[in-house]
Amino acid sequence: MQATTPIAIRRARRDDVGKIVAMLADDPLGRGRERIEEPLPECYCQAFAKLDADPNIKLVVAQDERGDVVGCLQLCIMPGLSSLGASRGLIEDVRVAVNRRSRGIGEQMVRWAVEEAHARGCKLVELLTHHTRLDAQRFYERLGFSRSHVGMTITF
Amino acid sequence: MQATTPIAIRRARRDDVGKIVAMLADDPLGRGRERIEEPLPECYCQAFAKLDADPNIKLVVAQDERGDVVGCLQLCIMPGLSSLGASRGLIEDVRVAVNRRSRGIGEQMVRWAVEEAHARGCKLVELLTHHTRLDAQRFYERLGFSRSHVGMTITF
Repeated sequence: MQATTPIAIRRARRDDVGKIVAMLADDPLGRGRERIEEPLPECYCQAFAKLDADPNIKLVVAQDERGDVVGCLQLCIMPGLSSLGASRGLIEDVRVAVNRRSRGIGEQMVRWAVEEAHARGCKLVELLTHHTRLDAQRFYERLGFSRSHVGMTITF
Repeated sequence: MQATTPIAIRRARRDDVGKIVAMLADDPLGRGRERIEEPLPECYCQAFAKLDADPNIKLVVAQDERGDVVGCLQLCIMPGLSSLGASRGLIEDVRVAVNRRSRGIGEQMVRWAVEEAHARGCKLVELLTHHTRLDAQRFYERLGFSRSHVGMTITF
C-alpha cells in the first residue's frame, strides 16, 4: 500500500455528477450500465436532484488536497421498527478513481459512512457487494464488517 | 403447501405496530433484539412516526379475510446515480405470522413489493437474508431473485 492520501469528504454537488458517473462506469460491472456522453444525459441530473432533496440520503465525494474528486459513496439512513426501532444505514456505490486506489481513500470514506450512520442512531450498517468482488469483501472485513448475509437481487 | 390464503396488502397504521413487533420478535434471530411489553415501548412508536412520514418508505401489512394482520414487509425506494439514475428498491423485515406460514402470504407480499418498486421506476430490487436462512434464500430464488451478492453488516 502506498502512502495514505489525505482527503476531505463533502456532500456531492451538481457539478460533481459527471465525475461520479465516470467513476461508476470505470469498472467491469458498471461499464455496461452507464452512458458517458457530453453533455451528461439528463437522467443523471434528474436523479441527482431527487437524491439531493432526500434527507435520508447522503451522496458524498472524497476530494484530495488539489481539490480533485477521487472517490464517491452513497449512504442511506432508513428508519424501521426492528431492533427497538433503530434506523439502519445502507452503503452503496462506493468507488475510488482507478489511478488513486490503494491509498486509503475507500477506507476513509467507509469509516466516515459508518460513523455518520452511528451518529444518526443506526445500530446496523449494511451493504451488498457482488459475489465476484473478493477484494471488496476482504476490504470490508478489514473495516469490521462480517459476511453475515446473502445479498439477493432482481433486475428489470 | 396448504391452500393459498387470500390477503389484502395495506399501509401499516399506528395500531398495527404491536402486531408487527410481535412478528419481528417471533423468530430465532429477532428474539433477542425486541422488547414485547404492554404498553409497547415508546421507541417503536417513535420509529413508526418517522418511517410513516418518509415518502420513500412503505411499511405494509398483509391482512387476511377476517381482518387479522398475518404478515409485514418494509420497502424502501432509494434514488441514486448508478444505472442511468435509476432508483433501487430494498426489501426488509419480511415476516409471516408463525401459524400462517406456507400459505403463499410471503410470496404475495414480496411480489407486491417487487411490482411496487418497478412501478416507482426501480431497475433493481435488493435484499439481505441471513446466511443461515436457507429456506428464505430458496423462497426468494423461486420468486426470481438471484444470490448475486454478499450481504455484509456491521453492528454497534
